[in-house]
Amino acid sequence: MKAEIIRQRRKDLRYQLGERNLDGLILTNPVEVTYVTAFAGHDSWALVTKRSTYLITDSRYTEQAQKECVNASIVERKGTMSEALGKLVGKLKSIDSIAIDASVSVAAYEALKKSTRRSLKAIESPLKTSRSVKDADEKAAIEAAIAIAARALEHVKPLFQPGVTEIELAGTLDLEMRRLGSQNAFETIVAFGANGSRPHHQPGNRKLRKTDTILIDFGARYNGYCSDITRCFALGRPTAAYRKAYEVVQRAQAAAIATIRAGVPLAEVDAAARDVIRANGLPVYGHGSGHGFGLEIHEDPFLKEDAEGVLRAGQILTIEPGIYIPDKLGIRAEDDILVTETGCEILTRACPHDPLPA
Amino acid sequence: MKAEIIRQRRKDLRYQLGERNLDGLILTNPVEVTYVTAFAGHDSWALVTKRSTYLITDSRYTEQAQKECVNASIVERKGTMSEALGKLVGKLKSIDSIAIDASVSVAAYEALKKSTRRSLKAIESPLKTSRSVKDADEKAAIEAAIAIAARALEHVKPLFQPGVTEIELAGTLDLEMRRLGSQNAFETIVAFGANGSRPHHQPGNRKLRKTDTILIDFGARYNGYCSDITRCFALGRPTAAYRKAYEVVQRAQAAAIATIRAGVPLAEVDAAARDVIRANGLPVYGHGSGHGFGLEIHEDPFLKEDAEGVLRAGQILTIEPGIYIPDKLGIRAEDDILVTETGCEILTRACPHDPLPA
Repeated sequence: MKAEIIRQRRKDLRYQLGERNLDGLILTNPVEVTYVTAFAGHDSWALVTKRSTYLITDSRYTEQAQKECVNASIVERKGTMSEALGKLVGKLKSIDSIAIDASVSVAAYEALKKSTRRSLKAIESPLKTSRSVKDADEKAAIEAAIAIAARALEHVKPLFQPGVTEIELAGTLDLEMRRLGSQNAFETIVAFGANGSRPHHQPGNRKLRKTDTILIDFGARYNGYCSDITRCFALGRPTAAYRKAYEVVQRAQAAAIATIRAGVPLAEVDAAARDVIRANGLPVYGHGSGHGFGLEIHEDPFLKEDAEGVLRAGQILTIEPGIYIPDKLGIRAEDDILVTETGCEILTRACPHDPLPA
Repeated sequence: MKAEIIRQRRKDLRYQLGERNLDGLILTNPVEVTYVTAFAGHDSWALVTKRSTYLITDSRYTEQAQKECVNASIVERKGTMSEALGKLVGKLKSIDSIAIDASVSVAAYEALKKSTRRSLKAIESPLKTSRSVKDADEKAAIEAAIAIAARALEHVKPLFQPGVTEIELAGTLDLEMRRLGSQNAFETIVAFGANGSRPHHQPGNRKLRKTDTILIDFGARYNGYCSDITRCFALGRPTAAYRKAYEVVQRAQAAAIATIRAGVPLAEVDAAARDVIRANGLPVYGHGSGHGFGLEIHEDPFLKEDAEGVLRAGQILTIEPGIYIPDKLGIRAEDDILVTETGCEILTRACPHDPLPA
């Protein structure tokens, strides 16, 4: 099953290389290496040619590569990555035009040009677009990552008590996600009260008060795949301003979700959420309204005001409008959504938005 | 004090730019941006010219930048980084030859060449070498990061009981480092028994047995600066093979530390540790014998068999030989050492190597 998927991905990639008159592509992003080889280690690159796939790794990973790789030649390098690739490319016949993912560093690119003695085209990896559409296995892994995150959140809710610190909550949540067999998809944000107004707030020693608010932005990584969820809670009766903002964020999110369907322009989805916030006279957030995710926490498509392109069936993305008023409040609602031909499927139903205390 | 240090760093950098006939350097590595501006946020680049320093950031970080930056012009970008830099460079007079850190991606580099309409030299950042020598404040931050790590380790030692899992230990250690005001310097490794033979082992659900061994490789990041420590423990009396390997690793480490002094070739320090292991007929490790660290967990100098160059007074580095026998055992001893003119100072004394149970 897995092997079949990997073969199909390579077939698609080779088709795209053919369209661009390329004989081979060097992949340097670890998740793209995983995507076309099934190898889950690090510090390794892949070369996909018309006929073969090569994984260039080092002795630390050779054993793992032999176990995990689907039908790939494993090259154990002793020297630098560019030396190893130079040697490999030198041996290959009828490989004239090779490209490399343009996210590679200039230093590595220059070393590679020297060692391969070829002109090397740097291109945006065609996998960036392919990866945005998820297959059934990928969807299942994301759903598992969501289930773990949801369970971990339930586990820490009893800690929502006066005196607990942001660090304590974040650390306990992270530990629970690990106990459940996952890793952090990204650094967990726990922000109490006005700290929520900084979208990147780093958990600190701020203690939860008797009447207070909590913002948690977190996700698990399971089998390589991420989840990404934000929930807000109130301890005691929140201010009228908070209640209004909370309700507007919920409506903004619902408005964006209502637009989701294959073929809809990305900018239209983004605007749907912003419009609700603007119409209510509240400040419009500076970040995007959502983003794809999967092997990486931020992937195509990106929902921004100036985004081009349309949604495609099978894409999985967040919808996450927020309202941030410095020194006052911060609220964000973030769910994970599968785009379908006829609409969408909300994958984060298992992680309910708690109603605010009356 | 802090401002004085930042000014001195820029003065040194400008001297090095002068030596290379450069009018400006674009820094893209977040820790190097911090190093010359004191700004601790992300997604921001710095441009250092003969006269001025510019921080190019976005609205999420403007407030933080205004607070933290030492005498820098803050440019809030709306569009991409390259657009903002293109505009900025266009406005500057008598800036002819600009360089950029070659660790930038080819994609960003190409966009920048277009937007600045200039030839842009990609060079290895001169800061890479400067950063390896630590000043008193940097040493103090590293010592604080070591003290936190040592305290966190003491905190989890009571959990060294049959039944605890690797994940439980790693997660509790991480939580304690956060409680003590730090973050993880890198992903904590906890490996029981033969799992220790994989230098990158990822903590799993393996339970500690009545007679078992533990390898913990961990570090805290405090005020931006890292610590990096590995300790091994045994529960119950370990095998004769383990005892011998443990003792050889300790001797290998001591032999390498004994060579440390400003002016000594890096390869000589590396060889001192390997020689002890080889002389005892045990397998020589595939990784380096140590590495510098500071704002990054891996910095110059790197102690490898083919390393060129010599130690410099003020460098802080790990010494970490190990013995790895697949399916049998894994042992590593890692301490943090300051290089001085006359020898060295072991900074990790507060984190003792426990003697093996008799």
